[in-house]
Amino acid sequence: MAGIAEVLGVAEAFAEVERRAIPKVPTLRGKVIATLFFEESTRTRLSFETAAKRLSADVLSLAVATSAVKKGESLRDTVETVEALGIDALIIRHASSGAPLQVARWAKRARVVNAGDGWHEHPTQALVDCFTIRQVIAERTGVDPASLGVSCFAGLRILLVGDIAHSRVARSAVLAYAALGAEVTVVGPSSLLPPGIERWAVRVGTDLDAELARADVVSLLRLQSERGSGEFVPTLREYTARFGLTAARAERLAPHTIVTHPGPMVRGVEIASDVAELPNSVITRQVTNGVAVRMATLFLLLGAEGSAELAAGRG
Amino acid sequence: MAGIAEVLGVAEAFAEVERRAIPKVPTLRGKVIATLFFEESTRTRLSFETAAKRLSADVLSLAVATSAVKKGESLRDTVETVEALGIDALIIRHASSGAPLQVARWAKRARVVNAGDGWHEHPTQALVDCFTIRQVIAERTGVDPASLGVSCFAGLRILLVGDIAHSRVARSAVLAYAALGAEVTVVGPSSLLPPGIERWAVRVGTDLDAELARADVVSLLRLQSERGSGEFVPTLREYTARFGLTAARAERLAPHTIVTHPGPMVRGVEIASDVAELPNSVITRQVTNGVAVRMATLFLLLGAEGSAELAAGRG
Amino acid sequence: MAGIAEVLGVAEAFAEVERRAIPKVPTLRGKVIATLFFEESTRTRLSFETAAKRLSADVLSLAVATSAVKKGESLRDTVETVEALGIDALIIRHASSGAPLQVARWAKRARVVNAGDGWHEHPTQALVDCFTIRQVIAERTGVDPASLGVSCFAGLRILLVGDIAHSRVARSAVLAYAALGAEVTVVGPSSLLPPGIERWAVRVGTDLDAELARADVVSLLRLQSERGSGEFVPTLREYTARFGLTAARAERLAPHTIVTHPGPMVRGVEIASDVAELPNSVITRQVTNGVAVRMATLFLLLGAEGSAELAAGRG
Repeated sequence: MAGIAEVLGVAEAFAEVERRAIPKVPTLRGKVIATLFFEESTRTRLSFETAAKRLSADVLSLAVATSAVKKGESLRDTVETVEALGIDALIIRHASSGAPLQVARWAKRARVVNAGDGWHEHPTQALVDCFTIRQVIAERTGVDPASLGVSCFAGLRILLVGDIAHSRVARSAVLAYAALGAEVTVVGPSSLLPPGIERWAVRVGTDLDAELARADVVSLLRLQSERGSGEFVPTLREYTARFGLTAARAERLAPHTIVTHPGPMVRGVEIASDVAELPNSVITRQVTNGVAVRMATLFLLLGAEGSAELAAGRG
Repeated sequence: MAGIAEVLGVAEAFAEVERRAIPKVPTLRGKVIATLFFEESTRTRLSFETAAKRLSADVLSLAVATSAVKKGESLRDTVETVEALGIDALIIRHASSGAPLQVARWAKRARVVNAGDGWHEHPTQALVDCFTIRQVIAERTGVDPASLGVSCFAGLRILLVGDIAHSRVARSAVLAYAALGAEVTVVGPSSLLPPGIERWAVRVGTDLDAELARADVVSLLRLQSERGSGEFVPTLREYTARFGLTAARAERLAPHTIVTHPGPMVRGVEIASDVAELPNSVITRQVTNGVAVRMATLFLLLGAEGSAELAAGRG
Repeated sequence: MAGIAEVLGVAEAFAEVERRAIPKVPTLRGKVIATLFFEESTRTRLSFETAAKRLSADVLSLAVATSAVKKGESLRDTVETVEALGIDALIIRHASSGAPLQVARWAKRARVVNAGDGWHEHPTQALVDCFTIRQVIAERTGVDPASLGVSCFAGLRILLVGDIAHSRVARSAVLAYAALGAEVTVVGPSSLLPPGIERWAVRVGTDLDAELARADVVSLLRLQSERGSGEFVPTLREYTARFGLTAARAERLAPHTIVTHPGPMVRGVEIASDVAELPNSVITRQVTNGVAVRMATLFLLLGAEGSAELAAGRG
């Protein structure tokens, strides 16, 4: 398994491909990649499918509610079928935590990518956030991202705000940031902190305003009302008053503080609409970088021919 | 923005591509085109997707009811996401009049194509109709379409019949025909004429049989029962008796009169089934030409390299 | 129409393509193939779409419940539209027996493939089963499949078990096996034998255990509860006790007996879970072979350039 630094490095190469007149490389020609989304997600599915097509792979989208499932077939048999069809990679989103890991254990040949499972993990999103933070630091310091490596994360003060309990983005981000040596703090309503948070590699803050003032990066999390988090806050208005990045709070951020959000935003709840448009807000850039990071992920899983071909490949 | 004459000219070149053994050109290789249909439409979506694939673009289909929308994301944020993903063109169909225009205003880089919005417009369908009418005239007169240009529309008597009020096809067609100098007449139940019709560049006819007798082109419109037009007519039977192109009425058309219908037809309502099969009925040909016209539209929006490459391009 | 032997021969060539590093050939570049599934089926749709993409065709997936259908368009007009769009092949699954045949009669230019219609037929699945059986015999005997031709089916004792009445797989398999000279026996609950079975080219067995003991091939059929077969058996438990391939029954099979199942399996009903994993069970291999057989089907329908190009084609 490639390390974070390796993924970020390969993603830089693909970000360069995306800036070409014809932003397509033949790297994965002949590979078949299937997206199997048991929960729909416009942005993540499109990001993976765009990445796969830029690599010249063939892409199959599997319907969420498949007839095989309706006909009584188990997830295991669905996976065996997909694998028997010769599909090379399976990008899976599932409401059940651990489903992609289980699928990866069943798969004999196909590579499995977790595109989000329940409240558990969303690893490519964490990689996107790392890539984006490093990119901004590289631009500001004038240092090449490759030279920065992952050293820029050492001691970086990253604040995660909001619904920690139901956020797979938070779980993956905390793991990645901790591995890179960042200092991670979480703040949120006590009803939206997960049980066992004391065993996470994070500080639990209580005073949002004090934490905002010292943060290098503020990562807002979506209030996942479709996964029940709405029940844990009295009203959206009160949530915003206590934990939203309002215009007033945004003014008190340090000038260098980067604001991230994995999207989709609920403007006016987690983040004021104007704040999302501020120069230090990198929300749109996260979406853009998602394609390069997912190209890197698919390349590292499927492109056995190595980085020489990647560098040389032209569509 | 390309003029109608330019679109028709480029579409002729692509109609030639479609007749090749391998009807595919590399013109838009590396471009990513997304169809975002908030209202499903088999024929229009397939027409655009076929056009995009014949141009070697990569195509992404976005689910109509997207999770992002369900998660509370606004259309604006959906558009920003799509654009941030690096998607080059967004083909949008929406139930709300003006939605594609609004999307085009938000989009910074991606080109936006209106594939039908509410009762408002359906511009590529109007271009298809212009292309098809010119094609028939060219065949009958033995004059090359390029030589005809758009002169064949000057004074052409075009009759639109049926549900004018709810028809986006009618609005776009009237604008196009008027711009080309045709003489447009509309006939329909008074309950299905839009308020303000007196400001349209059309004559409003009352005697269908008299109008049919003098028309060069009869464009039937679909009775859009799914957009509520059924409420405006007493019964379908009465509608057909008064405004349908029945076999009896078809017999009284001039021998040269061209009959168009944007599809999908409800046979036996707007048009008798046998009439749809008459030689002067160009309904199937409209579908065929739709691909070439949409290739031209996408090429003119995205293919900055110009017509030299188009002419030379082979798949 | 190609004979079974020809399809199997071409499929062998494509099975070789699938084993290449880049398992893709340019054979059908520029062809547009649409899947039109009125009943969803993960495995069959993905199998056809993977096959089409490996042949470099462009693939369009049509939504099951299309707006055109909702707008009142008939199947005939949908087919005419698809054909007018220039689509080269239409792969259709439909709940009504005979729908694909009717579509094929309407189609003037597009080739039509039946991907399963009602209780009627599922011809490519029967071809997959023939291909797989021959492949196993070829491996065991060390004889090249091409040399075997279809001679290995002469006198082969094939036993179909289960819901014969509602199984389109059974109907197509019986036709194919009978044409190849195999000796076909069916066993199932009397309530799940079709009326008129005495006119099929099969023996109707009554003693499952006796039939299992003498079978060269045991083809299990799915209990199609979504097509109502559940009403015809007292309970699933009793069905399994009387007609399931339980571990005890599997032990009494001859060592060479091949076990097939078209999938999706309902493990524990038609087949014990462990039995599906036995070496003589070729269920996964059937899925794999499905891609090569469907590549052959599409090639024979659309690839007019003939087998020289097939043999030479490299992606």
